[in-house]
Amino acid sequence: MADGLATSFTITLPAWLGALLPDLPSHLATPEEQMALVHRLADRNWREGNGGPFAAIVVDAATGELVSVGVNVVLASGVSSGHAEVTALGLAQARLGTWDLGAHRNLALVVNWRPCVQCYGATMWSGVTRLVVAGDGPELERLTHFDEGPMVADWAAQFEARGISVVQDVLRDEALAVFRAYGESDATVYNARGQGALERD
Amino acid sequence: MADGLATSFTITLPAWLGALLPDLPSHLATPEEQMALVHRLADRNWREGNGGPFAAIVVDAATGELVSVGVNVVLASGVSSGHAEVTALGLAQARLGTWDLGAHRNLALVVNWRPCVQCYGATMWSGVTRLVVAGDGPELERLTHFDEGPMVADWAAQFEARGISVVQDVLRDEALAVFRAYGESDATVYNARGQGALERD
Repeated sequence: MADGLATSFTITLPAWLGALLPDLPSHLATPEEQMALVHRLADRNWREGNGGPFAAIVVDAATGELVSVGVNVVLASGVSSGHAEVTALGLAQARLGTWDLGAHRNLALVVNWRPCVQCYGATMWSGVTRLVVAGDGPELERLTHFDEGPMVADWAAQFEARGISVVQDVLRDEALAVFRAYGESDATVYNARGQGALERD
Repeated sequence: MADGLATSFTITLPAWLGALLPDLPSHLATPEEQMALVHRLADRNWREGNGGPFAAIVVDAATGELVSVGVNVVLASGVSSGHAEVTALGLAQARLGTWDLGAHRNLALVVNWRPCVQCYGATMWSGVTRLVVAGDGPELERLTHFDEGPMVADWAAQFEARGISVVQDVLRDEALAVFRAYGESDATVYNARGQGALERD
């Protein structure tokens, strides 16, 4: 008979971020203000040792109301799917009490690079109707050594075809600065199978 | 100031499955035995109203020891990333206390169809070194009306290139029978954005 199988797991924000939440603004009006927060959290996240240099927030697309805040918690939570996007989307769903973030209003996911292949799907099924990214391209993998996984070439068009608009290149240089600092540090590039395949955000 | 932001979310097995765990065998020696359990859980899952007709287990690739059991809990948990694979992988990581399932031994993920694009990435970064699927192809989407998302054509080769072997077509007809029963029922095909884009496993 099977013994000791787990029946639940939990994704939790790191303590430093939990403590910061009450001080965050209730609204972030522009994509630039939203992304500036994302970059700040991404940079602190890897320095705190919680996971990769990635953060994401969910905001009301019309008002900029902050609905959730996430960072990569793979190392902190011990769960490999705990990327910034999965964390932010799950926390938004927990707060709003629905698996469908598009049920009542238009919400946007704001993240500091094009999602990896896991978070590409996670975003697609979440109900958000807008994705805002700082950038796209090989720079992330080159600077951080994370593997983003195999993506279709028309990834943005596939979002648009499903009713999710994509806004690109918001504070792109600032994203690269975070990745560069991470890559030049001695931080753990956590990697499930040695040097072969890496993971991220 | 931001108010009432969530700091954690939890993925939990449905009560019926938690109650079943002590009665499951500790080992499932063959891929066929493993997949038969997956099919049984997938079929019960949608009938119980927890989510889609999808289940997954993590087993020791050498001994068949059962390490975790997951089902799609999108409806039950209110978290859209709570697909069967994400659930089974996260529960295995919770049990073993590591985000890297490949840290100490070779583990396999057994699931009743090729993963959707989210779970493709989730599997890739989990540390498992083998993926066993009942099948691949358009039948799943046709029978259930779920959207699997945009996948690269060489998805299995991409796994192999990262040290993850892929075993296909284990009890394929039995998988289709579950999907067909689901599709012919009046179960909710939960869908984050109306008729346009669906989700799954």
